[in-house]
Amino acid sequence: MPIVSEEYKEKKKRALLQAARRVFVRKGYSLATMQDIIEEAKVSRGSLYAYFTSIEHVYVELLRAEDQQDLQFFEQTKTNSSWEQLLQWIDEQRMKLSSREGTLVRANSEFFLAVQDTAGSASSSYILQRYERIIAVLTAFFEAGRSTGEFYPILPTGTIAHSFLSFMDGILLNSSQHGANTIKAQEQVEALIAAMKALLCPVTA
Amino acid sequence: MPIVSEEYKEKKKRALLQAARRVFVRKGYSLATMQDIIEEAKVSRGSLYAYFTSIEHVYVELLRAEDQQDLQFFEQTKTNSSWEQLLQWIDEQRMKLSSREGTLVRANSEFFLAVQDTAGSASSSYILQRYERIIAVLTAFFEAGRSTGEFYPILPTGTIAHSFLSFMDGILLNSSQHGANTIKAQEQVEALIAAMKALLCPVTA
Repeated sequence: MPIVSEEYKEKKKRALLQAARRVFVRKGYSLATMQDIIEEAKVSRGSLYAYFTSIEHVYVELLRAEDQQDLQFFEQTKTNSSWEQLLQWIDEQRMKLSSREGTLVRANSEFFLAVQDTAGSASSSYILQRYERIIAVLTAFFEAGRSTGEFYPILPTGTIAHSFLSFMDGILLNSSQHGANTIKAQEQVEALIAAMKALLCPVTA
Repeated sequence: MPIVSEEYKEKKKRALLQAARRVFVRKGYSLATMQDIIEEAKVSRGSLYAYFTSIEHVYVELLRAEDQQDLQFFEQTKTNSSWEQLLQWIDEQRMKLSSREGTLVRANSEFFLAVQDTAGSASSSYILQRYERIIAVLTAFFEAGRSTGEFYPILPTGTIAHSFLSFMDGILLNSSQHGANTIKAQEQVEALIAAMKALLCPVTA
């Protein structure tokens, strides 16, 4: 084995996950294979298996990498108001809805269904941890806005966090099942913003 | 074949669909078989196939029957205000979230994924028709409320209909994936009501 730096390994892993993402967007989770990723990434079998032991392992690492971006967004020190920061994140999701990059919604559904059958498995507990981590970060974000006097939430911030996620997930799910145009996904984002305004009562809005 | 009345056939079909429902709640869609339904309903193979040609056929008919109840609810002549009628429907969904009857959310996900691969099939076009029918009925309901001066919607009623469905579907999806308690489903219903209030601006609320 050649001696490689941590930095090189991280870069290589990210490239493999990007290739894997394209495979999962195209084929979903159930039909995707390690071989598909090897072909998409143009690497040897050994290279892929040096980083990931199975397709399930690849998927969990991909989810982790995708979440990292969202979590960092809400955890970062902000330069604008909490409400503007929230609007900015919602706007990024809106652009993703119609982007050509495609979403992992279908693959996510298949992955969740696949691991539901193996309760107690590492992936199954990761899925729950993941949900709870997102809720914790969103709740902390809404709480911070409340403590600075930017938000006057009408319900517990935890409830608002769960609800925000459900509304977003519902838009993503129905987009994936019926198409973003059919479900008027862009217009629904306006309704999501109106709902968040009613729940958080931001002073800046 | 014995001569049977239409009424008898309808009753028989409903009983078969109820048995099928219990199977789909327990096993999801992918793993359920015609044999499971035969055993659950305690009927002969011939009896089941006299009504349904395949497991896919059973599922489409079950969806149709379930939707019928919701659609009738919104289409019926009302004795109370539109807002109270909406609250009543939301309350029924809330009770279903924690009922022991179980939901079809998992089976629905599996069914939707299964028929996505067969675009152009009868089931695939039924799924789209079904979505559009629900949206049409909800939109008409919100429009009726607007025309009687009960609602002062801040966005097009069609957009509100799509959004209401996304929010509900997101709550159901996350309940199914992580459990109704984990996602605070009961509390989320309060947020859904607050969101609908902000979108519809009902005069009675």
